[in-house]
Amino acid sequence: MFGEYFDNVRKKRPLICCITNCVTANDVANALLAIGASPMMSDEMLEMDDMTNLSDGLFLNTGTLREAAVDIMFRAARQTAKQNHPVVLDPVGAGATDFRTRTALELTMDIKLSAIRGNISEIRTLAVGSGTTQGVDADAEDQITEETLAMSAAFTHFYARKTDAIIIATGSIDIITDGRKYYTVRNGRPEMTRVTGTGCMLSAILTAFLAANPGDFLKASSSAVIAMGVAGEVAAERMLPGDGNATYRNRIIDALCNMDGKVLDERGNYEEK
Amino acid sequence: MFGEYFDNVRKKRPLICCITNCVTANDVANALLAIGASPMMSDEMLEMDDMTNLSDGLFLNTGTLREAAVDIMFRAARQTAKQNHPVVLDPVGAGATDFRTRTALELTMDIKLSAIRGNISEIRTLAVGSGTTQGVDADAEDQITEETLAMSAAFTHFYARKTDAIIIATGSIDIITDGRKYYTVRNGRPEMTRVTGTGCMLSAILTAFLAANPGDFLKASSSAVIAMGVAGEVAAERMLPGDGNATYRNRIIDALCNMDGKVLDERGNYEEK
Amino acid sequence: MFGEYFDNVRKKRPLICCITNCVTANDVANALLAIGASPMMSDEMLEMDDMTNLSDGLFLNTGTLREAAVDIMFRAARQTAKQNHPVVLDPVGAGATDFRTRTALELTMDIKLSAIRGNISEIRTLAVGSGTTQGVDADAEDQITEETLAMSAAFTHFYARKTDAIIIATGSIDIITDGRKYYTVRNGRPEMTRVTGTGCMLSAILTAFLAANPGDFLKASSSAVIAMGVAGEVAAERMLPGDGNATYRNRIIDALCNMDGKVLDERGNYEEK
Repeated sequence: MFGEYFDNVRKKRPLICCITNCVTANDVANALLAIGASPMMSDEMLEMDDMTNLSDGLFLNTGTLREAAVDIMFRAARQTAKQNHPVVLDPVGAGATDFRTRTALELTMDIKLSAIRGNISEIRTLAVGSGTTQGVDADAEDQITEETLAMSAAFTHFYARKTDAIIIATGSIDIITDGRKYYTVRNGRPEMTRVTGTGCMLSAILTAFLAANPGDFLKASSSAVIAMGVAGEVAAERMLPGDGNATYRNRIIDALCNMDGKVLDERGNYEEK
Repeated sequence: MFGEYFDNVRKKRPLICCITNCVTANDVANALLAIGASPMMSDEMLEMDDMTNLSDGLFLNTGTLREAAVDIMFRAARQTAKQNHPVVLDPVGAGATDFRTRTALELTMDIKLSAIRGNISEIRTLAVGSGTTQGVDADAEDQITEETLAMSAAFTHFYARKTDAIIIATGSIDIITDGRKYYTVRNGRPEMTRVTGTGCMLSAILTAFLAANPGDFLKASSSAVIAMGVAGEVAAERMLPGDGNATYRNRIIDALCNMDGKVLDERGNYEEK
Repeated sequence: MFGEYFDNVRKKRPLICCITNCVTANDVANALLAIGASPMMSDEMLEMDDMTNLSDGLFLNTGTLREAAVDIMFRAARQTAKQNHPVVLDPVGAGATDFRTRTALELTMDIKLSAIRGNISEIRTLAVGSGTTQGVDADAEDQITEETLAMSAAFTHFYARKTDAIIIATGSIDIITDGRKYYTVRNGRPEMTRVTGTGCMLSAILTAFLAANPGDFLKASSSAVIAMGVAGEVAAERMLPGDGNATYRNRIIDALCNMDGKVLDERGNYEEK
């Protein structure tokens, strides 16, 4: 069922404008190319209108955020929203620094975002004003487990209603909700946290999934989450003795490159609630 | 015949100053190291004179261009030209945004560039003021094919005469011309468009080829284009089931690392016109 | 003996704040994750106090240094030093440009640095005001060899006393000294100079080693140097015909990911003087 959303990305080849961090920009670009989308990166106000006019969706990421980029993000988001193209926010480091928390909150309040994807600490910080973000990784106390799932689902749900955006909180279990119903996804592998940028890559390809599937953002988001999780699994299966996180990074992008809707349908491990 | 130009790079080990985008900077650096050149990256005015004095060539790339970088590019280009060292421009995104088009045009008009390397849409935009650049990738309508080769050659030729620079328009067929004669190259693989930065890497190593071969920029440029194309082919031959664009990226750089003039001479697929 | 310092990193999982260059930021992040540490990157003044308060150590790197980043580095360094957390400087390009030399010197004079790690040309430039830095790579004349070891050790020693920091000068032989005694390390492989960022990665993981081993910075630094050298050796042993510097980069990070104190103890090749 979720496979068709992936296939639509390959068919429509959306062009995604990315205002993202310099640490994982290369992986984000290759992940978008892997699924058949096209990346375009900028953080210069002078060309932002041209960029957003050309592109089919906007990906905002607050990793290595600079003050000068905040206005650019707002401008790009407003222009993209005007065209009814999706805007996705990855609030990297929300909860870790006031600057990132405040910027992410302002974006969520002033702009009609299509989706917000973060680890559970980041989403919790934005949703309820507290979280125990430890750097850019989710805090152990915040992990989504079978025990904490109900509580995590509750504030994710609440936050989706408040923002009118799809909220995607990722961890060992992923939660995707539009505030009415939600999906949990149990794909992926714990080793993915040892690779920088897996979250950024997911948020970027999610933007492409939304751009290619304007009719159902909840299912398109869930499909993107499953795709990334399955990529992590396929990549893990191809690891050889001696391989580590650098090779794993490459294998994850490779797996996205070789994926299609059929694989996603076969391997998707999700529940609808 | 083109092999010796490659071997000269390995012998002379030119130091290339790069003002380039943050998305592919790492791949550009490793590609330069792969062919035996040495990269040095900066976008700070305060050190640009020192940088250009030390280096043997300058590589300018307009991907993720910032306004503040424009003056720096001009300064670096003038200083490099004064020393009779090559300046190469990769006008990433020319045609996609006014800012990049304008900056690229100003650079080509005010500076004596040694070579300009872009996809056919970018070159067409600069040459005749129109192109159908879709983001940072060449538009399908603009592809160089056997049918459109004569027309593409015509405006590339014209643009080389106008700028007095070597013009390199790359695509499924590559055109390299100095405005008097031209080479077409049919090396490379379509999968190269699925890897971010193959164009940037080519433009960067091209700078090193020119720095190491001051006597014949047209042949040195053609040699660089063949080297990159052959690297794409060798890399493709080493791909295993399950490998994708991330592994392909690594294999391309690996292939450059293992290449020498002999391989280039054996595998080069070009015509002189 | 040095293995326990590595194991402490895996146990304590220090969070390292990185103000580093955009060329190798991704490799630095993955290298930190590989050894069990956690990276956090920023170059924005507005969040620097929050960043340094959260983190267990600070890594400063002058590659692609911008003027605006200098004040940010000073602020971050002062805040980190106040908390008695380690501050490590990698003076990339000191000796190559006045701006980088001056910034590195000012940092070493105004801030209590825990360690300074550079190639021998960079260290020599800072220590005795001259070096023959050729770009960002050490000059051939400056190489640490059996013949020049005594002289290199002398000025490294002197510089450690002057700065009250651990000085790590790396090359074919590495020197680590606190100004009282020193270690030489003969691990590593010459091919490591063909990969961009091996020096940056070493300096970054060194910061994590210091953060996890506050009791003995000299031994912790030596352990980090051995770890990187052994990673280079393990990676080289896994190379296949056709592999080149891109694959070698991945294998180095992979080797760090699979390393533990036991491997380090078995393969460490060092002398205490």
